[in-house]
Amino acid sequence: MLDPDARKQVLRSFTYGMYWLTAEHDGERGVFTVNWASQASFDPPVLMVSVEKDSSTLPLIRQSGRFVIGPFLAGQRELAADLGRPKARAGDKIAVYDLSIVPMESGGFALRDSLGGVACEVWSEADAGDSVVLIAEVVEAKVLGEGEPLTMSAAGFRHFG
Amino acid sequence: MLDPDARKQVLRSFTYGMYWLTAEHDGERGVFTVNWASQASFDPPVLMVSVEKDSSTLPLIRQSGRFVIGPFLAGQRELAADLGRPKARAGDKIAVYDLSIVPMESGGFALRDSLGGVACEVWSEADAGDSVVLIAEVVEAKVLGEGEPLTMSAAGFRHFG
Repeated sequence: MLDPDARKQVLRSFTYGMYWLTAEHDGERGVFTVNWASQASFDPPVLMVSVEKDSSTLPLIRQSGRFVIGPFLAGQRELAADLGRPKARAGDKIAVYDLSIVPMESGGFALRDSLGGVACEVWSEADAGDSVVLIAEVVEAKVLGEGEPLTMSAAGFRHFG
Repeated sequence: MLDPDARKQVLRSFTYGMYWLTAEHDGERGVFTVNWASQASFDPPVLMVSVEKDSSTLPLIRQSGRFVIGPFLAGQRELAADLGRPKARAGDKIAVYDLSIVPMESGGFALRDSLGGVACEVWSEADAGDSVVLIAEVVEAKVLGEGEPLTMSAAGFRHFG
């Protein structure tokens, strides 16, 4: 009953932003690109973020119980593509791409060259097929720059459908 | 530690689409506007959608275990605003706004004047403060029209922050 062409056509008309997501635990750190992220509650402020089960940063999120997420700037299309590569191939992406980072007071870090980021404390995790959905409360916010956010549509990426 | 101005500034740079969401159970039907919706898995195709706990359509989703969701068209800003009003004030919004609907084979209905919709079967529900996050598998897709999707940014609405 599920027509794959119709599924793709409808799901590709969904609108997405593009975000970096970082986590660290015990001196190990990870960063990757996500677009399946959205606010989920105003009061308290809660986000929902989908993370692939084979992400090498997922264990760091689970161990620390936290992550930091923020929108890429409109000019950061290449960086968003670079940080979308698996760590296994890219290595320590913070070092490889010489990224400047800013520690959050509540733990973890943001990318300095960005609009800013919010630190989140994971409340729960739900199974979602090839990914898990993290439900997490925003516990700290830091503004780092100004500008327009990068959107999936402007970047021309198609991580949906 | 959570600065409300910084929180708003970062969260308002997240990017959203605008969607209608319908559910029906036992002859009762509901429709409302959501923007906190995203794909969450490719295989199988799964969505995550945040729904306010006081939504009058939430009980219909829970009772039927299903919903149908689709993007508004770029020209449907007014309809998106109308369908965002609580049912308690608006009444049966399908009748009040004289909306033409299309039944899905798997149950429920789509709005005819739209890009199309996907029918979803709810897998689980997670608490998210003032809302619940529904994790739901896409079981049917129907293309109904062509055009560009409406985005929050184009509509000028600010249901985030």
